[in-house]
Amino acid sequence: MTPLRILPLGGLGEIGKNMTVVELDGRLVVVDCGLRFPTADMLGIDLVLPDFTYLRERADDIEAIVITHGHEDHLGALPWVIRDLGQDKIPVVYGGALTVAMARSKLDEHKLKEIRLEELPHEKVVRRGAFGIELVHMTHSIPGAAAVALHTELGTVLVTGDYKFDQTPVDGHPADFARLAELGNEGLLLLCGDSTNADRAGTSPSESGVGPHLLEVFGRCEGRIVVTCFASNIHRVQQVVDAAAELGRKVCLVGRSMRKNVNIGRQLGHIEVPEGMLIPPREIEDFSDEKLVIISTGSQGEPLSALRRMAHRDHPAIELRKGDTVVFSATSIPGNERAVNETIDRLYHIGCTVVTTADAPVHASGHGYADELKLMLNLTHPRYVMPMHGDHRRLHLHGQLAESVGVDPDDIFLGENGLPLEIDDAGARWAERVQSGMIFVDGVDIGDPADVALRDRRMLSADGIFIVVATISEQTGASVAAPEVILRGVPFLEDNDSILGEMRAAVEKSLERAAKEEVREIDLLQEFLHDDLAKWVYDRLKRRPMVLPVVVEI
Amino acid sequence: MTPLRILPLGGLGEIGKNMTVVELDGRLVVVDCGLRFPTADMLGIDLVLPDFTYLRERADDIEAIVITHGHEDHLGALPWVIRDLGQDKIPVVYGGALTVAMARSKLDEHKLKEIRLEELPHEKVVRRGAFGIELVHMTHSIPGAAAVALHTELGTVLVTGDYKFDQTPVDGHPADFARLAELGNEGLLLLCGDSTNADRAGTSPSESGVGPHLLEVFGRCEGRIVVTCFASNIHRVQQVVDAAAELGRKVCLVGRSMRKNVNIGRQLGHIEVPEGMLIPPREIEDFSDEKLVIISTGSQGEPLSALRRMAHRDHPAIELRKGDTVVFSATSIPGNERAVNETIDRLYHIGCTVVTTADAPVHASGHGYADELKLMLNLTHPRYVMPMHGDHRRLHLHGQLAESVGVDPDDIFLGENGLPLEIDDAGARWAERVQSGMIFVDGVDIGDPADVALRDRRMLSADGIFIVVATISEQTGASVAAPEVILRGVPFLEDNDSILGEMRAAVEKSLERAAKEEVREIDLLQEFLHDDLAKWVYDRLKRRPMVLPVVVEI
Repeated sequence: MTPLRILPLGGLGEIGKNMTVVELDGRLVVVDCGLRFPTADMLGIDLVLPDFTYLRERADDIEAIVITHGHEDHLGALPWVIRDLGQDKIPVVYGGALTVAMARSKLDEHKLKEIRLEELPHEKVVRRGAFGIELVHMTHSIPGAAAVALHTELGTVLVTGDYKFDQTPVDGHPADFARLAELGNEGLLLLCGDSTNADRAGTSPSESGVGPHLLEVFGRCEGRIVVTCFASNIHRVQQVVDAAAELGRKVCLVGRSMRKNVNIGRQLGHIEVPEGMLIPPREIEDFSDEKLVIISTGSQGEPLSALRRMAHRDHPAIELRKGDTVVFSATSIPGNERAVNETIDRLYHIGCTVVTTADAPVHASGHGYADELKLMLNLTHPRYVMPMHGDHRRLHLHGQLAESVGVDPDDIFLGENGLPLEIDDAGARWAERVQSGMIFVDGVDIGDPADVALRDRRMLSADGIFIVVATISEQTGASVAAPEVILRGVPFLEDNDSILGEMRAAVEKSLERAAKEEVREIDLLQEFLHDDLAKWVYDRLKRRPMVLPVVVEI
Repeated sequence: MTPLRILPLGGLGEIGKNMTVVELDGRLVVVDCGLRFPTADMLGIDLVLPDFTYLRERADDIEAIVITHGHEDHLGALPWVIRDLGQDKIPVVYGGALTVAMARSKLDEHKLKEIRLEELPHEKVVRRGAFGIELVHMTHSIPGAAAVALHTELGTVLVTGDYKFDQTPVDGHPADFARLAELGNEGLLLLCGDSTNADRAGTSPSESGVGPHLLEVFGRCEGRIVVTCFASNIHRVQQVVDAAAELGRKVCLVGRSMRKNVNIGRQLGHIEVPEGMLIPPREIEDFSDEKLVIISTGSQGEPLSALRRMAHRDHPAIELRKGDTVVFSATSIPGNERAVNETIDRLYHIGCTVVTTADAPVHASGHGYADELKLMLNLTHPRYVMPMHGDHRRLHLHGQLAESVGVDPDDIFLGENGLPLEIDDAGARWAERVQSGMIFVDGVDIGDPADVALRDRRMLSADGIFIVVATISEQTGASVAAPEVILRGVPFLEDNDSILGEMRAAVEKSLERAAKEEVREIDLLQEFLHDDLAKWVYDRLKRRPMVLPVVVEI
């Protein structure tokens, strides 16, 4: 019998782009299909996907894709993967009701209408090839989050997705402790668990504890209130709405994704807004300041978000002023600190009062802390443990937590993207590494981050470009027109006629030298000019723009 | 009599590039000349300086530049300002001994040897024009920090520079409380105070409290120890050396600025290292692991720093391994979090143990907390207060602190860069705004951030460039050679012959259309091609590279 293989293609040694492939008897189930957002050094790149070359090679063997919940880092790569592999290669995509609704909306935007998207009710096991697939209800910062249990002949693998053990969730529906315990009693083979908050001691605060704090903060406000949170955090939005209702304030939703998510959430019954309470942004000025709560996107300082635009006094409908209070009901995702702080500082400059988690507990994380990870381990007591969803530090800390509850260190596997774990009756071991890493999305195309054009972009962004066009006679090789010299992205010089004149002279000289050395073949001549002029430019300007000679023969 | 003018040109509404101009009777004293490091969106920019246009306009009226301490955000712009204004325009630069030594080293690098740099002993008042200039000893995270008292006929202005009130500094030399109190008794006119930690309650921990914690952490280490801190934090380095000595470990300094600063510090007696304790990096392998402490640059995850290179297994002398402990004796400056976290994560991946301020108090801030800012206010009881060194939020909070100790809200001035405060017998008020903002350093040149080339860089970095070279007959306007089409920085396409073929065809078509419409004049033709091809490229590629048509007439 072939071993069971668990292959993480994303989410290990990083935060984001989660994707795990579970394989048995030559057939694959893919759990999650997430993306990451580019960092500032990925110039002009729109999105980062897991390198799914392995899926491309095994496209005929895919049984199903299962999505744990609707966040971008678990769902966002789905359209790109489906488009690349072909809709006919993916027999079915499973998820909870909200997850499926959000996937549908994404796939529609990509005009991928033929894919079979199926809501998998909790506690129902569907059979796909060698796998029984089951969703187990969990709590997280979006409704309808689930862990995925994959039942096989060799045992059951549980991929937790993102979770916390919220004992008092807003919808009154805690994680399915009973089913997790049952899986533990049956003997769980492998736990692949969320490590995001492995570095935080204790237990995460309950989502429903945020509401009273919001109400208290709101109660102190005399002017308008703007609350910003993640648009997908439907239960948070519910609590803002409830606090507003309590104080007799109307609610205005601002930002495209906020309106969209609240709409989907209302259709599926995850959020209830009293009749007549929502008002459109254009009616804001019809209500007095103390009668308004604005719920806005932009908690991460995103450049085009509603809150960022308000902070820059650039929002079409809402002009913030002294007396307004802005509540950040979210924390900064690592990497966004600068954008968030800049937004906050602009709000102070306008004269707003700003309330963040440093001032009041107006946010609760969606990821369980150390004691919750231990609870998961103690409920499911797995034979093997493979921490997921975290940088190396968090995987390491999650491993320590597993050890602390009695898991044998030899049974804890700290993995890497692309490194498959194989399990059979003889035990568990690392198998041969497969290709993994990042794929970049640029516009509508996807490709390899090692693409030379991306190195070029870095060069262009750091020092600009210096283009030389030389026109030479095909017969004699002599220059038949004055060389053109163009600078782009070289600051403080482009209008400097004397520098441009010097450059033209340098090009002429270089051409003469080339003629003297009888460099005639066009590629060689371009190379000659490149080397000669790159040196000249550095000596003269102490900069290294890209030097691009174009030789036209006529 | 003309009023006293206090004009901040940097450091208000931002962290960094501190510069304040104090003016009386047409003469100027400049306090500090600092820089900022560029953020990721300032593509290829090396440094950010305060816009000192005002100084350029008033170059003949400068009495002196006074530098409070040797950090880059107070000293770093000095060579650029001097080079721009001319060495003959700056009669003298004052500072403490270490500050002057560090300024000397900087100016030497810029070949500015003629400037008069003068050490101003504490408690000595030098007269320059209408000003008596005095340094008052303060404590900070670099030795020799001072506040600047400017005595005038209208009263005394105190610019604090960066400070904390360390009651037990490492060198046993606390801030000059007596002189501050004396200034208060004499009646201080205006306090311009550091706001960096206005948001932290209580009192900052003493620098000398860090040593015992370092010793305790070191004592638990069995392998090598790497400590990273700011190279200018000489007293921190002293404490690392002391802890190493206590445990019989040798010390190796790694990183150019670490060696340079320790050298200057030793020459001035700020740091003492026992004979035979320092070893060069090449001898590291001669000592066993438990006999070594490495002190390294790179606490901010700087790309070329020693620690970052070690974390990337790219350091020429030191290869980290499982068993090593890396101690971050510093916190991340806002904006550096990602680089620091990435460095830490790579260290975990190597198998190192990492100790940060989250694990043990191995760092103390150099900036006073709220109670220290209140102490400063209570010692000096100024007539007017102008918070400095901080974003709008911190200036606002510093203002609240001033109010809390009894300063009249009307006497607290929350300023902005470029906004002068005027004070005379009739009171204090804002005067007319002068030019302020940023100046960029790119290579050896400085200039305006609005330079079109910087916009071009953004475009080039986001979408690359599409260059078209068309060669036409001067007589007929007809194309006389096949057009050249070149893409740079357009990912996933540059080797795509069919796209390049399509592009060439589009150019030919565009040229034909131009000929039909009798567009002949070269600038017009280039514009025609630009507009036509930009549209074609967007329709075809859904990207907006810079389109650069070059028409060569022969």
